[in-house]
Amino acid sequence: MLKVEHIGIAVHNLAEANAVFARLLGAEPYKTESVVSEGVRTAFFRIGETKIELLEATHPDSPVARFLGRKGEGMHHIAYEVADIGTEMQRLRAEGFVLLNETPKRGADNKLVCFLHPKSTNGVLIELCQEIR
Amino acid sequence: MLKVEHIGIAVHNLAEANAVFARLLGAEPYKTESVVSEGVRTAFFRIGETKIELLEATHPDSPVARFLGRKGEGMHHIAYEVADIGTEMQRLRAEGFVLLNETPKRGADNKLVCFLHPKSTNGVLIELCQEIR
Repeated sequence: MLKVEHIGIAVHNLAEANAVFARLLGAEPYKTESVVSEGVRTAFFRIGETKIELLEATHPDSPVARFLGRKGEGMHHIAYEVADIGTEMQRLRAEGFVLLNETPKRGADNKLVCFLHPKSTNGVLIELCQEIR
Repeated sequence: MLKVEHIGIAVHNLAEANAVFARLLGAEPYKTESVVSEGVRTAFFRIGETKIELLEATHPDSPVARFLGRKGEGMHHIAYEVADIGTEMQRLRAEGFVLLNETPKRGADNKLVCFLHPKSTNGVLIELCQEIR
């Protein structure tokens, strides 16, 4: 685990939330990106070595839409940058954590990602991510 | 806003959660601390320039106990480090954010802190914090 790469926040309306976080952080999002496979549109803000990722659902049965329906807007996940996602997945599986995907998958922002089930991490959805080089 | 100083996570049992996060992050908490005024016991883990703060309620009507009762375990707040908390509180008030304390108060980890109401920040409880020098 190298650092907190980003904190994901689920929002109902990305344009409105972008305006709120721009006022909060004093800077505009540096990029927006859709991840079709996850059914989300995202916007990224830099703050120090970390990013804030706002997530809006693009269809009603996507994971983010289901989260919003269950819990409302708010913090959705913490993403940790790792040097080698395969090694880290193997280590965490051996430690008893529940992985939500068996092999790394393609995420936003040019990353390979894997999620850990919140039931094994005190209710926190955790993402591992490794930059695709 | 200088960086994400820490991410707060509400847990039912600090000792058990410490063991989970030590396995996850590969390191033990570097300190534990009680904040009597907030009714919490906390443990801190370093990761890059950021920290993970686990929060356990010490009495049943503390804010963290109420959060756990309403939402269960999980991400509780994001704390941003600021250079001058008074200036930042004034700026955010002028921008229309709702501050939960009118003057900075003493928080964990030798900090002056102020919280923003989640209703003005897309459901995210936000803490501003400044190191006490």
